[in-house]
Amino acid sequence: MGVEIERKFLLTGDDWRSLGEPVLLRQGYLSSQPDRVVRVRIEGERATMTIKGRSSGATRGEWEYEIPLADANELLDQLCEKPIIEKYRRRIPHAGLTWEVDEFLGANKGLMFAEVELESEDQQFGKPSWIGEEVTHDARYYNSSLIRLPFSQW
Amino acid sequence: MGVEIERKFLLTGDDWRSLGEPVLLRQGYLSSQPDRVVRVRIEGERATMTIKGRSSGATRGEWEYEIPLADANELLDQLCEKPIIEKYRRRIPHAGLTWEVDEFLGANKGLMFAEVELESEDQQFGKPSWIGEEVTHDARYYNSSLIRLPFSQW
Repeated sequence: MGVEIERKFLLTGDDWRSLGEPVLLRQGYLSSQPDRVVRVRIEGERATMTIKGRSSGATRGEWEYEIPLADANELLDQLCEKPIIEKYRRRIPHAGLTWEVDEFLGANKGLMFAEVELESEDQQFGKPSWIGEEVTHDARYYNSSLIRLPFSQW
Repeated sequence: MGVEIERKFLLTGDDWRSLGEPVLLRQGYLSSQPDRVVRVRIEGERATMTIKGRSSGATRGEWEYEIPLADANELLDQLCEKPIIEKYRRRIPHAGLTWEVDEFLGANKGLMFAEVELESEDQQFGKPSWIGEEVTHDARYYNSSLIRLPFSQW
């Protein structure tokens, strides 16, 4: 098991757009229960299956396996809960950390936020100027929530 | 994707007991929804994660990945739906096919059945003398059902 400590923020302005190359991510869920999320994701030619336990604060157990790309396409098309989530991700380095900025498509078009992965819950870090309000603990922003209640229906 | 075609039968008598070495299987579910089953299984030192789609007749899409044993133990103990299923499995060859005979423990103690994997739905095959009534289509006998309504509560 790895442990994932992430904080999530809304964006202000558009300065982040020019700071990273957008990569298309397609992902879906075999389970979107908060106790046991099972995610299938394709990023470029790389496909993974990721299992996440229930969040405790900003910390969450995580297990990840690479799977064949063809399998991932079958699982996304045939098995995963609908809708699939599609988003452009930009990876933007800032002050020694990497910010992942997600810009959603489809039923979640218009939604954008950034996440940063930390080593510990109390780690100090510098925020880029385009980082806004923190939404780490707002369950509406969980990817697994965005298939049940997409941003277009908020 | 592989395709799994299996038929399932109750047992008659005890002759099967001496025909195969029992191996302990521990398995649990990250999703037990009929549309998308995600199973974690440990058999001896080998651990797998298996995804199964909805059954259509005796046929079911199946994707399987080997995972580290330590991960499987963590997933079974921390994340999988409870109760975990534990059973002794015997593999018994008969007339060119291998029968998997499962004898359940815990909340499903007393339950026993045999499964045979086929190449096609209409494949002919010889049944051992200890094979009884067919229960392929009885959802109570799905492993994923046996965590919600164990045999002890039938």
